Amino acid sequence: MTDLTFRRATLADLPAIVAMLADDDLGAARESAWEDGSQSYRDAFAEIDADPHQFLCVAEAGEQIVGTLQLTFLAGLSRQGAKRGLVEAVRIVRQQRGKRLGEALLTWAIEECRSRGCSVVQLTTDKRRLDAPRFYERLGFEPSHLGYKLPL
Amino acid sequence: MTDLTFRRATLADLPAIVAMLADDDLGAARESAWEDGSQSYRDAFAEIDADPHQFLCVAEAGEQIVGTLQLTFLAGLSRQGAKRGLVEAVRIVRQQRGKRLGEALLTWAIEECRSRGCSVVQLTTDKRRLDAPRFYERLGFEPSHLGYKLPL
Repeated sequence: MTDLTFRRATLADLPAIVAMLADDDLGAARESAWEDGSQSYRDAFAEIDADPHQFLCVAEAGEQIVGTLQLTFLAGLSRQGAKRGLVEAVRIVRQQRGKRLGEALLTWAIEECRSRGCSVVQLTTDKRRLDAPRFYERLGFEPSHLGYKLPL
Repeated sequence: MTDLTFRRATLADLPAIVAMLADDDLGAARESAWEDGSQSYRDAFAEIDADPHQFLCVAEAGEQIVGTLQLTFLAGLSRQGAKRGLVEAVRIVRQQRGKRLGEALLTWAIEECRSRGCSVVQLTTDKRRLDAPRFYERLGFEPSHLGYKLPL
């Protein structure tokens, strides 16, 4: 497997991240081209980057950005005051799929959550992503919950 | 319906909130009695309360605390930099269930998310909560996702 490094995203990574979000069967319909939407993406990036509970991650292979995900570390009362790690917006660049980079990215994320004292990692995946259950279940995730969304 | 008010929880509300978390078919197995676990709950409360992206809410009817939920406002890149509202740890005190207080609490939460600029509200519910789907779907939530958890 290619050597990967994982690090906090910088503003310079933003076009590559947005390109990955858009180059996706579901994302294609809801993202805008970088040129059209760059201000809304920049604003969101600034807010994520300023929040100590957020970690927007990029995975690099050599000089190329090959993956991304967003981690949020959430304090909560339930489960005796357990901290949770929330995973959102997982993507691997199209040309690099099928090489288990996603597995490496999630394994990194799980360890990062553990090192920050989280006692559970949680995520949801759109039911239309037919390959996702096998992927997450191989990593040990259990499909114990239903995921609801309400667009405003 | 009883008149409800919704407000940010204070430290003084913590025993009542923890009692609601524990007095629950699933919560009973994973919460501790207030006396045993109070320090871990206090620590978690302090962290939630200090985070401007978190809103731990209590619903009051007269002088009594009758419900709680935790809201988190999450910046993100996907969906063109959309902000999400995340709902966790929804509870109505046992003696007051069946009076549509939960519906009022969620309706408040949805409006709070809207007023903070969120374009989607999301939550997960344990598949063992057999009444939850009807409750959330009546409020307009769509069960579009699978919810995964990995205990660490």
